[in-house]
Amino acid sequence: MRWSQMYAPTLRDDPADADAASHRLLVRAGFVRQLMAGHYSLLPLAVRVRTKVVDIIREEMGRIGSQEWILPAMHPAEIWQRTGRWEVMGDEMFRLKDRKGADLALGMTHEEIFTTLAHELSSYKQLPQMWYQFQTKFRDEPRPKSGLLRVREFTMKDSYSFDLDQAGLDRSFDLHHDAYVRIFARLGIPAIPVQASSGSMGGSASVEFMSPTEAGEDLVVHCTACGYAANVEKATSALPAVQDPDGLASPEPFDTPEARTIEELARQHGVPAEGQIKTLVYVVDDRLTLVLVRGDHSLVEQKLIDATGATAVRPAQPEEIEAALGASPGSLGAVGVTGLTVLADEALRGRRAMTTGANRDGVHLRGVDVERDIAVTRWADFREVVAGETCPNCPAALEVVRTVEVGHIFKLGYKYTETLDVTVLGPDGSRIKPIMGSYGIGVERAIASVVESHHDEKGIVWPVSVAPFEVVVVPIGKNDEETTKVVEDIYEQLRADRVDVVLDDRDERPGVKFADIELVGIPYRITVGPRGLKEGVVEVVSRATGETTRVPVADAARTVAGLVAESR
Amino acid sequence: MRWSQMYAPTLRDDPADADAASHRLLVRAGFVRQLMAGHYSLLPLAVRVRTKVVDIIREEMGRIGSQEWILPAMHPAEIWQRTGRWEVMGDEMFRLKDRKGADLALGMTHEEIFTTLAHELSSYKQLPQMWYQFQTKFRDEPRPKSGLLRVREFTMKDSYSFDLDQAGLDRSFDLHHDAYVRIFARLGIPAIPVQASSGSMGGSASVEFMSPTEAGEDLVVHCTACGYAANVEKATSALPAVQDPDGLASPEPFDTPEARTIEELARQHGVPAEGQIKTLVYVVDDRLTLVLVRGDHSLVEQKLIDATGATAVRPAQPEEIEAALGASPGSLGAVGVTGLTVLADEALRGRRAMTTGANRDGVHLRGVDVERDIAVTRWADFREVVAGETCPNCPAALEVVRTVEVGHIFKLGYKYTETLDVTVLGPDGSRIKPIMGSYGIGVERAIASVVESHHDEKGIVWPVSVAPFEVVVVPIGKNDEETTKVVEDIYEQLRADRVDVVLDDRDERPGVKFADIELVGIPYRITVGPRGLKEGVVEVVSRATGETTRVPVADAARTVAGLVAESR
Repeated sequence: MRWSQMYAPTLRDDPADADAASHRLLVRAGFVRQLMAGHYSLLPLAVRVRTKVVDIIREEMGRIGSQEWILPAMHPAEIWQRTGRWEVMGDEMFRLKDRKGADLALGMTHEEIFTTLAHELSSYKQLPQMWYQFQTKFRDEPRPKSGLLRVREFTMKDSYSFDLDQAGLDRSFDLHHDAYVRIFARLGIPAIPVQASSGSMGGSASVEFMSPTEAGEDLVVHCTACGYAANVEKATSALPAVQDPDGLASPEPFDTPEARTIEELARQHGVPAEGQIKTLVYVVDDRLTLVLVRGDHSLVEQKLIDATGATAVRPAQPEEIEAALGASPGSLGAVGVTGLTVLADEALRGRRAMTTGANRDGVHLRGVDVERDIAVTRWADFREVVAGETCPNCPAALEVVRTVEVGHIFKLGYKYTETLDVTVLGPDGSRIKPIMGSYGIGVERAIASVVESHHDEKGIVWPVSVAPFEVVVVPIGKNDEETTKVVEDIYEQLRADRVDVVLDDRDERPGVKFADIELVGIPYRITVGPRGLKEGVVEVVSRATGETTRVPVADAARTVAGLVAESR
Repeated sequence: MRWSQMYAPTLRDDPADADAASHRLLVRAGFVRQLMAGHYSLLPLAVRVRTKVVDIIREEMGRIGSQEWILPAMHPAEIWQRTGRWEVMGDEMFRLKDRKGADLALGMTHEEIFTTLAHELSSYKQLPQMWYQFQTKFRDEPRPKSGLLRVREFTMKDSYSFDLDQAGLDRSFDLHHDAYVRIFARLGIPAIPVQASSGSMGGSASVEFMSPTEAGEDLVVHCTACGYAANVEKATSALPAVQDPDGLASPEPFDTPEARTIEELARQHGVPAEGQIKTLVYVVDDRLTLVLVRGDHSLVEQKLIDATGATAVRPAQPEEIEAALGASPGSLGAVGVTGLTVLADEALRGRRAMTTGANRDGVHLRGVDVERDIAVTRWADFREVVAGETCPNCPAALEVVRTVEVGHIFKLGYKYTETLDVTVLGPDGSRIKPIMGSYGIGVERAIASVVESHHDEKGIVWPVSVAPFEVVVVPIGKNDEETTKVVEDIYEQLRADRVDVVLDDRDERPGVKFADIELVGIPYRITVGPRGLKEGVVEVVSRATGETTRVPVADAARTVAGLVAESR
């Protein structure tokens, strides 16, 4: 390919509305354009990258024996109604009617449709089956943003496994887990596998693959020493044991007219936050509930949901709190409270000499012994892990990283084969329901995630595996016969070696060309100019390291082809 | 690939609802399954075929310098409203609203969206541009049918060209024309390029590529001798000159009480159909109009529309006819009619001694000299060509073939750059509107069209270029060590030669395997059995010709790889 024949509209300036680095750079470097919020056109450079990403995923799916299908993107409502997800999906599902008035959905995912196809399986001998597709998914995101990271229309590689029993599912799940680890490694995405909750999918277990990025909306607690990783909604940490003084025989009220927050109490009365009890009031499935955490800790609402099994939780309104406790937020506490559920975080267990609100405005209690003075209904882990706390599995300090989900794998269990009534004949002649897994990677989000972790101030730094071109050959200086000949020779040799190469034949100054090449992010640049040729050399520049090497003309193509082959 | 690892559910019987051969065979051979009318799942065998079809199209697009994009399938209504097609597309466009109530369309085609992207072109130096994509199109067909031939959701390769002037458009159009000819030849689709009308696309010229099939809904008039081809709506033919006798001095009425049709008049009164004038009454844009064709000819309504430039035509109601002519259908004629537009088909020019209705029920006129006795407002070609008539360009006889459209290319002109206001800076500093072309191939319909023209009573007969596998190796007889070794060797040699081969390792009788292989349509079968091995040979069978050759074991892989390479 010659650059002059290629439509790659680079922009001088960052787009005004771009927050994420990948958004900014993919627009500036001429890879994507927005049609409307959440819908992007992929330009030729992006299609080249996407093709390589798809090929890598396809290869790894083939390697574990998964077979490629393509299912419709538009579905009859009826199938979604049978599994109950016509309702569950709510506003996130795009719905429409056809000319005859039939209700239709645009596929957000394809559990229902693949399960319908599994009706044709007749015998346990046909199991396991692993099926996948690359197909457009439509999701009416409430806030599409960050370029390709959070969109309403995208390509998903979604896979589904059907097994005879739990051991089979475990095996299919592990095969996908390992394939995903290989895929993300090959794409250059530093994805962290994290235990996660299954959400609307149902099922017993799931692992999310999370890629660090400042544009992410999910916090992951991660130990680089032992590999422990968990979503902040599930993560725990080890806290140093606290030796409290004996304290008072019973709690003692004291006036705190100006102290309504943990910080004010600490500043005005010298009570450190870790010596305070934070009393939060929630409505958990219509039931007013006190949740106690240490003053310097934060509650994770998901942990409250998980611990109680509640379907709806919300902070109580001031009126509800006033009615139940007789005081306003700022002076609340659980000492002496009866008739309400009191949930306490494990970090409060055994603590004495603590301070908390007295349920009288402007008054707190000190000398509180939590287990002695508070009728705790239930102890559990409710607090949010903070960076620097100790890993629960090893002595290292935890990191908390902002991430985006790049893959998600689920053990679905029997939910879909049950509701859609799929069975096969078992070895003993009985009907057996296959057990399912599902596994997804968003292709365009993967592209953006590569950019999130591979860029610098000059532009994108593609890994060779997914770069739109592996090498660019650039003639500079006056276009004399010798330069042209050397350039064309190197270009043709690289093509013959099956290197994905572009010849920058544009009539532009070297500075303009180099800036575009760095912005677009091509891994290797071979610069051919009269000055070097006088000494029989060309310049090879690595985009990733910036390293420049002078290479004899005759060796240039072979040397660079070697560099490329090494890092493919 | 080993057959035992492949999900290819062949069926013993034809599906009940399948009309077209491709529908019947693609279902039976395990390539497709219907989700709902007009929406099909592609199974792994079909995905293999589709990938090869896409690769061939992509290669030919690359060869003419077209660049691949991917645009959203979901569009804001606003862009379609600007070109007026939000209304024009009517019920055929799927429409929906998002969670905020914004109007959206699912793309039926992408002229609007690609033209929007052309806004970024700034200079004539960037022209021409040729852009294409493979993207799902959604069309709410009133009667989806015939399997993959007429669906509501399908992949389209759609291309768009932007040129500086008409000469540039002509060049881009010709490049696509020739690329399409190559594509259909490589796919094995015997497509006939046909001049066509542009319909809702607008523009000045278009060519349809029509593939013969009994399941088609479009009639094409075709001369295999000189290549003349036209849609029946446009086609003409040469008729032998007629030498009428001198006839009467003026028309003479005669009673025909029982003759209300051309056939009745011929039978009862001995007037051959070619000696009669058929008088049809139409309402052409609210204007009652007589249309005259020879008794044995049929009117093509599209020719009436084209000749008059009308936007709406319909046959007149009996009451309207009675009011205007004073008689009922069966006795109508144009002799002596004034005050109405009278359109006459060219085949009536110069005819004398003709018979027509007298505008009195039960009475006809004979001895009519058309030019003398009828006030013809306008002569034009209105008649439908019939098989066996002479080609307008050569002495051969015409065929009329039932076809389906497999490709369509349009010279769009300025319609979209005008309404969406796209200009580039011209060589002289003025703003110039690019002129556009658009070009489409339906991928799944192409697959079905291949099957329509490549099947027999046993199943599909794929051309090598798009076959799901090029070769199948089949061990038969008891699985002794030697057979297994020979089979594995041939399989591995073929793989090493980059032949797309499947090993039929299923535990089935040879008859079952052979029937499946013929149904699925794999071009070459290598059968390895103990009987042949005793003589050192294997059997090579061609699916297309049925020819069986005995080939020495050592030559088998090389021989078959050669056959495959020849016909790729």
